[in-house]
Amino acid sequence: MAIDSTADLENNPVTRSRRQLLREGSAMLGGALGLAATQASPAMADNLPPNVPEWMKAPGDPVGGQLYGTPSAFEKGIVRNVPKNAAQYFSASSRTPLQDLDGIITPNGLFYERHHGGVPAIDPAQHRLMLHGLVDKPLIFTMDDIRRFPSESRIHFLECSGNPSYKKPYGKTASDLVGLVSCAEWTGVSLKLVLQEAGLQPGAKWIVAEGADAAALTRSIPIEKCLEDAMLVYSQNGERLRPQQGYPLRLLLPGFEGNMSVKWLRRLHVSAEPAYSREETSKYTDLMPDGSAREFSFYMEAKSIITRPSGGQRLASPGFCEITGIAWSGHGKIRQVDVSVDNGKSWQQAQLQDPVLTRALTRFRLPWQWDGEPVVIQSRATDETGYVQPTLSELLAVRGDNHFYHNNAIWPWRIDANGEVTNAQA
Amino acid sequence: MAIDSTADLENNPVTRSRRQLLREGSAMLGGALGLAATQASPAMADNLPPNVPEWMKAPGDPVGGQLYGTPSAFEKGIVRNVPKNAAQYFSASSRTPLQDLDGIITPNGLFYERHHGGVPAIDPAQHRLMLHGLVDKPLIFTMDDIRRFPSESRIHFLECSGNPSYKKPYGKTASDLVGLVSCAEWTGVSLKLVLQEAGLQPGAKWIVAEGADAAALTRSIPIEKCLEDAMLVYSQNGERLRPQQGYPLRLLLPGFEGNMSVKWLRRLHVSAEPAYSREETSKYTDLMPDGSAREFSFYMEAKSIITRPSGGQRLASPGFCEITGIAWSGHGKIRQVDVSVDNGKSWQQAQLQDPVLTRALTRFRLPWQWDGEPVVIQSRATDETGYVQPTLSELLAVRGDNHFYHNNAIWPWRIDANGEVTNAQA
Repeated sequence: MAIDSTADLENNPVTRSRRQLLREGSAMLGGALGLAATQASPAMADNLPPNVPEWMKAPGDPVGGQLYGTPSAFEKGIVRNVPKNAAQYFSASSRTPLQDLDGIITPNGLFYERHHGGVPAIDPAQHRLMLHGLVDKPLIFTMDDIRRFPSESRIHFLECSGNPSYKKPYGKTASDLVGLVSCAEWTGVSLKLVLQEAGLQPGAKWIVAEGADAAALTRSIPIEKCLEDAMLVYSQNGERLRPQQGYPLRLLLPGFEGNMSVKWLRRLHVSAEPAYSREETSKYTDLMPDGSAREFSFYMEAKSIITRPSGGQRLASPGFCEITGIAWSGHGKIRQVDVSVDNGKSWQQAQLQDPVLTRALTRFRLPWQWDGEPVVIQSRATDETGYVQPTLSELLAVRGDNHFYHNNAIWPWRIDANGEVTNAQA
Repeated sequence: MAIDSTADLENNPVTRSRRQLLREGSAMLGGALGLAATQASPAMADNLPPNVPEWMKAPGDPVGGQLYGTPSAFEKGIVRNVPKNAAQYFSASSRTPLQDLDGIITPNGLFYERHHGGVPAIDPAQHRLMLHGLVDKPLIFTMDDIRRFPSESRIHFLECSGNPSYKKPYGKTASDLVGLVSCAEWTGVSLKLVLQEAGLQPGAKWIVAEGADAAALTRSIPIEKCLEDAMLVYSQNGERLRPQQGYPLRLLLPGFEGNMSVKWLRRLHVSAEPAYSREETSKYTDLMPDGSAREFSFYMEAKSIITRPSGGQRLASPGFCEITGIAWSGHGKIRQVDVSVDNGKSWQQAQLQDPVLTRALTRFRLPWQWDGEPVVIQSRATDETGYVQPTLSELLAVRGDNHFYHNNAIWPWRIDANGEVTNAQA
């Protein structure tokens, strides 16, 4: 539904009824002149147009106070969300405050973190990347060498495979629940191009990537992915990678579980077999109901979450409410997002915000009238392969009780009569 | 030219010859094992793979030290560029360090600034937007009211109309020259939707927008633009606007000169005539050779700049060099960017990075072999209307010596035999 043309607006029952509500002078949008809530306080009334607020009466802050800018002091509460009971040092994470963000780009200061040995402070002039193993010519690259290669920029999401886990208690907010996903514009070098400089030998089937952190995090990557869309990344949202994101160099495997996009990348070992490293045996492998191990579960399947309204928020009053959120798939583009406002009984197709990019967050929106009754809302993503996001019970039926990673279940929010939004799955 | 498929690489003379250079063991990319420059220092050799650098020997920084992240200390030099001789308080600007950035998204901390009365510190709970004049129903909106409207997100550039001026001395770096342009993903409300709530009356031809800064910066906007793609914006790159960008609310007029996208927006006055405000008479109007005033020069015409290599940088050695930069047009999408490496005698078509978006920065790239001889390089943008970026002499011939704003000239960089890059127009 196009809502930005006059004809559509006039013919659209949602916006038409909303306009009627406004015209009736209801407090629903609170936007009409002379609302009691605004005029009650003389101090506030002084600041209303056409009166002149205090910040217009004297010059503001000069340029140059912030050569590198930071958010308004009024937004100091919008920060990364660190779980209180997490092991803070050796195996730690912080989550993006999804419920406070708009659009698809995550600002670098709020990009989620997941470290296995803390954040190393790497001098880029001393950093090296070694490429060896089943190659014609082993190579060591400085950062200058890497930056001299032809570059490319692409917008992709990154997501931790344990986002969320299947364990209760489930999170209260969208960030608590699935805040281990973020999206940025990455710039770097095609890994394929770098591999071609070294020359792959017959039998090269895997590349083992190692990070220069204290965990020496090590993951094995199928050669097909390395030759498809893998990148060696040095910039994120225009500027150099942040330390928490792998400065000065990281691997990026679009659509694969986040830990495989090895940060602080120092070594690529081309091999015939995977390494079966610590992080692909003790972690990032799941126990299935039949006792077998589900290992090398690379792809992040299609998922979506409503970020507004979502857990911890409160609807001020009945009436118009835009439902919005994000959807993504490791397999490509999002084709469709459906939203239910009746506890899953029926579904309406949401609008997708352009551009819809492959392996990137996609913003969806649905205009909605809340009648003030308790309700359960949820979203369901379908990707370009036709795969449809499952319910939690569907996932549990297949994967059993010992599964920890790759929970891409539909997640419902409950809105109570007082407007409070809570996790309906809790 | 697609450079990311094997067949293309093998058949591409540029990359083939580059690979030959590498295979010959030349120092051109410096990437082969055992380069003297790397092995000379025992301290550095200790940090080379497979040796273990110091930052792998102890845990790094824990999560939570930076709930809102900042760049690496090694990148502290990449900041906004404040002209040393600018009037710092009342009429000030800072520039984006374009030559150090990649991709098309400008991180919020490095987005260019232009203020006319300093940066006000506005409490969003007290901020109001008044919409009045030729409307059926004058309205005052709180920020909560604004955020309750249906939202949209779009990636657009913003550019100051004096970027650069026609006055010498011309800047030394890309940032000195055209650093008053940046690009972000903006989220907010369609202004058309808000105007429809108030109801435009017959005769409504202009909207006069006023900022809540000490300058009460005021600009008149044709109603057609307000009903086309104007937005009331509260978020930038996912998070709330920064104070320097108009927190908590700004107007966004995609493709129009930056000062018209009024920051700290407090008032929209719908009128039959423009206001002829201070900022559209004493400023932001140009004197033409015939003595007439070129006023209401809204659109930023097609422009491009090579950001690497660019002024102040230095090529380490002859050989492969990717030429990259940004192009943009206030009239829509960039259709083509051509690059000359022979002082304008011949031109080659550059690759455009997807997605190419309307009224957004577009990244272009051209693979190139520098033979070590002095050379002048430059880029030329063509937008979807067919408009071609002019040369400086073409612009001066039409606009004369008293023109200040709207210089979208092609800008050449000189590369000397020692690799130093300087402004060839200086």
